[in-house]
Amino acid sequence: MNGLVSLVGAGPGDPELLTVRGARALAEADLVLYDALVSPEALALAPHAQRFCVGKRAGRPSMRQQTINSLMIRAARRGKRVVRLKGGDPFVFGRGGEEALALAAAGVPFEVVPGVSSAIAAAGLSGIPVTHRGIATALLVVSGHDPAAWRPVLAPLTPRSLTIVVLMGLASRGAIAAELLARGWPAGTPAAVLWAAGTSKAQRWLGTLERLGDATPAEATGAPATLVIGAVVALANVLASRLDDDLNVAPAVAEERGDARARAR
Amino acid sequence: MNGLVSLVGAGPGDPELLTVRGARALAEADLVLYDALVSPEALALAPHAQRFCVGKRAGRPSMRQQTINSLMIRAARRGKRVVRLKGGDPFVFGRGGEEALALAAAGVPFEVVPGVSSAIAAAGLSGIPVTHRGIATALLVVSGHDPAAWRPVLAPLTPRSLTIVVLMGLASRGAIAAELLARGWPAGTPAAVLWAAGTSKAQRWLGTLERLGDATPAEATGAPATLVIGAVVALANVLASRLDDDLNVAPAVAEERGDARARAR
Repeated sequence: MNGLVSLVGAGPGDPELLTVRGARALAEADLVLYDALVSPEALALAPHAQRFCVGKRAGRPSMRQQTINSLMIRAARRGKRVVRLKGGDPFVFGRGGEEALALAAAGVPFEVVPGVSSAIAAAGLSGIPVTHRGIATALLVVSGHDPAAWRPVLAPLTPRSLTIVVLMGLASRGAIAAELLARGWPAGTPAAVLWAAGTSKAQRWLGTLERLGDATPAEATGAPATLVIGAVVALANVLASRLDDDLNVAPAVAEERGDARARAR
Repeated sequence: MNGLVSLVGAGPGDPELLTVRGARALAEADLVLYDALVSPEALALAPHAQRFCVGKRAGRPSMRQQTINSLMIRAARRGKRVVRLKGGDPFVFGRGGEEALALAAAGVPFEVVPGVSSAIAAAGLSGIPVTHRGIATALLVVSGHDPAAWRPVLAPLTPRSLTIVVLMGLASRGAIAAELLARGWPAGTPAAVLWAAGTSKAQRWLGTLERLGDATPAEATGAPATLVIGAVVALANVLASRLDDDLNVAPAVAEERGDARARAR
């Protein structure tokens, strides 16, 4: 009976950004429970495993957390190697902590395999360094899902003192921009929306805080988006154009027409 | 002439936490310029490459940034595959942005290979989820190197509204704790110091904000440390004891004597 649950971060989308250890856990897995955003290429690394999508898919709701926990615990108790595969890092808005607590309470052996988080890599893959000497020496990562969560965090910030990354914040982009503008952030603060960063469907909008609410992708997409707000976003104009498109998963750049004007200010 | 520079994140120390793509870039490299914290096991993945440490080592200062840039540019122009290997992620306090700008200015093709950042993984590998539903829905990452950088960022924060991670903050731990206490953070706010997380030399101190300034490792170490401040730190007591020590790089837990008292409060 050597059952084990591995909580594995799959990274931001590109299966090449899985860790070596995460790839090995998949190769040895008997059962993989994966989120909707995990790529088919990553799942192909687990050829011997039963694989179940437990995330939201095609309009169907996600599996209840309690059910996911029970599946993991029962399989591990039967001696199975279980991989719980999550987009990004398991402990960044992934409920990894809740699952780890459930496993600990059940006395099931588990391990945590950190992943490349979109909170940092979505920007990096788009030519935006989240920190940069003399420009930003701090980074705030917040969920945009619930105003009750992001408002008390964003409201007191000193304007332009750091880089803000908002995950799950596409629907809130207008409200978040309005909040920051009301708190003294300059209208011309650079801002970006990054859809599906690190995948072949990547799209990017670059502009300013005052126009963030109107940001739309060049092509319609159901992909999740990351918002980045702060002076470092301006570096994307220099860096992204130079990133080698053959090697980086190509960002289909959706420059807004207003962007050139913003830069000229 | 197919020269290329890859800015690669090596992750938090364990070579197994390199990405698949980072490992491949190393295998194909002609030249590797690495920081002092990169592990020998990671360097062994580049058997065909010339390898130079360009970070601080054994009391010797690090190579000047200008010199590093010149080395990368000259090698790439001679058609070499260059890997610039950095601890964690290249864009989190790693000067990756500066190097990318220098490469872009020189017209040298380059790519960014994100890595697992210690800003998130040091905590995760120690049983601390940086976010947790109902406990922390935001994460602040800041450099502790310079008070002029961290003070304006930390001072306005709503007490206990988020998780604070401080990199390069060991020397500032007392000053940072004093600043937060003066701004209304409760003395009993859970806090951790994590040395060399993700390596065989990992050590951990768990306590509270009011005692953070006195945090010391059980065994003397020259390893870098990550500070974590916030309610999520309390989860380490439940989770870290359950992490499978054979599989996770074993954390040599340095529980402070005062810790049990802190929990009992």
